[in-house]
Amino acid sequence: MLMLAVFHLFFLLVTQASPLDQVLKYIDDHQDDYVKHLKEWVSIQSESGDPLKRDKVIEMVHIAGKAIESLGGSVELTDLGTEELPDGKMIPLPPVVLGELGTDPNKTTVCIYGHIDVQPARIEDGWATDPYVLTERNGKLYGRGASDDKGPVLAWLHAIEAVQALKQELPVNLKFIFEAMEESGSKGLEKILSEKNATYFSNVDYIVISDSGWLSSNPALTYGTRGLCYFLVEVQCAKQDLHSGLYGGVVHEAMTDLIALLDSLVNSTGHILIPDIDEDVVPLTNEEHLLYKTIEFNPEGFKDNIGATRLRHETKEDLLLHRWRFPSLSIHGIEGAFSGPGAKTVIPAKVIGKFSIRLVPDMDPNKVNRQVATYLSQVFAERRSPNKLRITLNNGSKAWVADVTDKQYVAGRRAISRVFGVEAELIRGGGTIPIVRMFQQTMQKSVMMLPIGGAGDAIHSQDESISRDNYINGTKLLAAYLAEISQL
Amino acid sequence: MLMLAVFHLFFLLVTQASPLDQVLKYIDDHQDDYVKHLKEWVSIQSESGDPLKRDKVIEMVHIAGKAIESLGGSVELTDLGTEELPDGKMIPLPPVVLGELGTDPNKTTVCIYGHIDVQPARIEDGWATDPYVLTERNGKLYGRGASDDKGPVLAWLHAIEAVQALKQELPVNLKFIFEAMEESGSKGLEKILSEKNATYFSNVDYIVISDSGWLSSNPALTYGTRGLCYFLVEVQCAKQDLHSGLYGGVVHEAMTDLIALLDSLVNSTGHILIPDIDEDVVPLTNEEHLLYKTIEFNPEGFKDNIGATRLRHETKEDLLLHRWRFPSLSIHGIEGAFSGPGAKTVIPAKVIGKFSIRLVPDMDPNKVNRQVATYLSQVFAERRSPNKLRITLNNGSKAWVADVTDKQYVAGRRAISRVFGVEAELIRGGGTIPIVRMFQQTMQKSVMMLPIGGAGDAIHSQDESISRDNYINGTKLLAAYLAEISQL
Repeated sequence: MLMLAVFHLFFLLVTQASPLDQVLKYIDDHQDDYVKHLKEWVSIQSESGDPLKRDKVIEMVHIAGKAIESLGGSVELTDLGTEELPDGKMIPLPPVVLGELGTDPNKTTVCIYGHIDVQPARIEDGWATDPYVLTERNGKLYGRGASDDKGPVLAWLHAIEAVQALKQELPVNLKFIFEAMEESGSKGLEKILSEKNATYFSNVDYIVISDSGWLSSNPALTYGTRGLCYFLVEVQCAKQDLHSGLYGGVVHEAMTDLIALLDSLVNSTGHILIPDIDEDVVPLTNEEHLLYKTIEFNPEGFKDNIGATRLRHETKEDLLLHRWRFPSLSIHGIEGAFSGPGAKTVIPAKVIGKFSIRLVPDMDPNKVNRQVATYLSQVFAERRSPNKLRITLNNGSKAWVADVTDKQYVAGRRAISRVFGVEAELIRGGGTIPIVRMFQQTMQKSVMMLPIGGAGDAIHSQDESISRDNYINGTKLLAAYLAEISQL
Repeated sequence: MLMLAVFHLFFLLVTQASPLDQVLKYIDDHQDDYVKHLKEWVSIQSESGDPLKRDKVIEMVHIAGKAIESLGGSVELTDLGTEELPDGKMIPLPPVVLGELGTDPNKTTVCIYGHIDVQPARIEDGWATDPYVLTERNGKLYGRGASDDKGPVLAWLHAIEAVQALKQELPVNLKFIFEAMEESGSKGLEKILSEKNATYFSNVDYIVISDSGWLSSNPALTYGTRGLCYFLVEVQCAKQDLHSGLYGGVVHEAMTDLIALLDSLVNSTGHILIPDIDEDVVPLTNEEHLLYKTIEFNPEGFKDNIGATRLRHETKEDLLLHRWRFPSLSIHGIEGAFSGPGAKTVIPAKVIGKFSIRLVPDMDPNKVNRQVATYLSQVFAERRSPNKLRITLNNGSKAWVADVTDKQYVAGRRAISRVFGVEAELIRGGGTIPIVRMFQQTMQKSVMMLPIGGAGDAIHSQDESISRDNYINGTKLLAAYLAEISQL
């Protein structure tokens, strides 16, 4: 913070403050208002996973719509119909907020995505303070949704408001798409994107998503996420579960087959044993490898945080490459077997092993599906088991990677440099965020993830927070991004 | 039944009816009373596993005690203290019913074990009729506990009552031990046996247990059960569950280690791979093998009943030997991994594999425990995994086998021949019944399992039943056994 202050002071002393500088100063001066605004949003328990709180989710949709309107934008709440609960009851899906601000054909149009629903939270889960009362402690703002994703959505709105308050012209046209079912599988979102692609979204030039976090204390741009193939491997040996005393010794047990199938997938070092599985992995270039050298990442701290004795790789570069840039296979569990505490002497009749492979460019889910099915069928055939085998791809999605030399990334890097005085870290994500690819594939436009959340925000967990610095400097960053992208 | 009728008619015509014949006829004549009595007992929902039904279990204890007293026996309800529920609440354990009938030092003393608690049952589970209303259909008496074990307990009481009703002298002294926690681990039973062994049970000559079923439609004596070593194999890789997107590729996953450990236990034909595991298995003699030839057992029907495509063995003898006479290993499941339906992208931090080995004479649980621990530790060491491994023997019990030339078995065979006109099948059980070995080891007396239940009684399942024939002829069998054992 001291560095930032010196940096601003320097600007203000030696130059007439530029329009952007004025905006950045305005944001600093109004930070308490922004914290108050976040407190209001956090107080709405918009848990999309809880049907009993659906009215709160819908209330949040209306609040977000009104916030865009108060900036002078036009808003459409697109009806997504109803959701059927497991008990057959129907409840309304929350509408998606579509907002438009500015329609100047000479300006760049930026589409901003965010979500206003949250993960569940109860103080009994182990929160230090009420998750729905934003509480500041030691520079951090604690509350459900503070970082994921109400804080970032508000940061966008405040960045625009600051420009308007200073009577400056908005440098770009904006399209907002705020959904309220992100934490519950983004139900209905893809349909809206497809339906509105040729009309509402037709003039979008760039898509920016602020729904992730930095890797360290350094500001970052995210240019890739891994894809996923999630498999179900079902083996059945009998009509119903059998008693291991009465039947043990005479039945070809389904669990024995399944365990052997799962054991054939990776070796003891985690190397995937499915033949040619990595033949489509894009070779790592020297240039790309260099990107990893500059990233701040502490292997020891990472290891200690997990509680692992030793990791599969030692260097910073290897660890990051294997989290982001190479495929990995994890075995998640088995459905249908005994999973409770204690002892049960059962021979399960039908067991379903669950494992998944994280995909990287240019792996194709359909091809991976064929490779897995062929390999496991062969392993199974060699066992000469009389049991029934069924291999299913539960869901598959490609990896996403952006071109970091694209104009958006240039604008993002300049904005980070301007606001934080440091070079942006170019990072990827190991997880799979289907909406990113969904935007890219539907709109065929450049997508950038521009996170403002910190590395330790504990999203989806107890004591979620966003630091006041991240929240306020993030707002400045988004304002700077809009200024930069308009000039490219 | 026709054969039995002809048989009895023949006796009545050519001879003065013997005392036992009179008893057998009396039992036949009073069968409706016995069914009515069973209906009363079945109506008591004495589910020992449900703390909310503990009063019903205790009510059943008092009913059983009164039934012994009505035969002229003396009864002691031995207090077992309290049971602590998972929520910390304390509830009373049901007392064990100890009953004594006859103290003639010149007579043999037979100790009869049975249990009066039952497995849970709800009509919603798929029963055709209310499980607690004994209902006769097509010669079968449907109801929870009809075969396991209220029917057999009542058969003993009715056999004695028939002798008394005919003013005959009881041929033996009797000691009853009826427990009401059998379906919940026989809590407290071992303590009672130890405490009372030198006093109350000191004059017991034989122990008879009627708590099992025939293998086919032929009456049987059970002379052996397998033992059990149940293992928990715990592998831990992290402090808490991890997201497979964020951590997949850099963590030595606990599931991968556990799957490999479990896969090292048996090969694809079910052969146990733990070195020397079968070195203490008593060699099969020709004489013993012959016993298997005469047993009625239909491999095809058995296979179809399971719903298996093919079994591990084809002949009747091989199937029975591998169910009763050889060890087997079953993998039951994994605790701590994902076990629900659908997909969850978790790297479980701590997983506990559950498997068990059925033991046969003369395998020793302590030695098996050492063999398993040594082998799995070696397999794990070869993986060079940094994770934490813990192998625990959850419970171990030796196999039980009786000498079939013992007087009890002679009496049992004669009784079967007398009542059914056929040779007894000498069978074993693949399961583990710890109380059998508990009785044998504590009292150091001969134990025989004398089942009256049929092969298709569906105990522990929906539509449990005992056939009217089995119930009534079983009562005769027990009366005949008492007559025969007194003469040996």
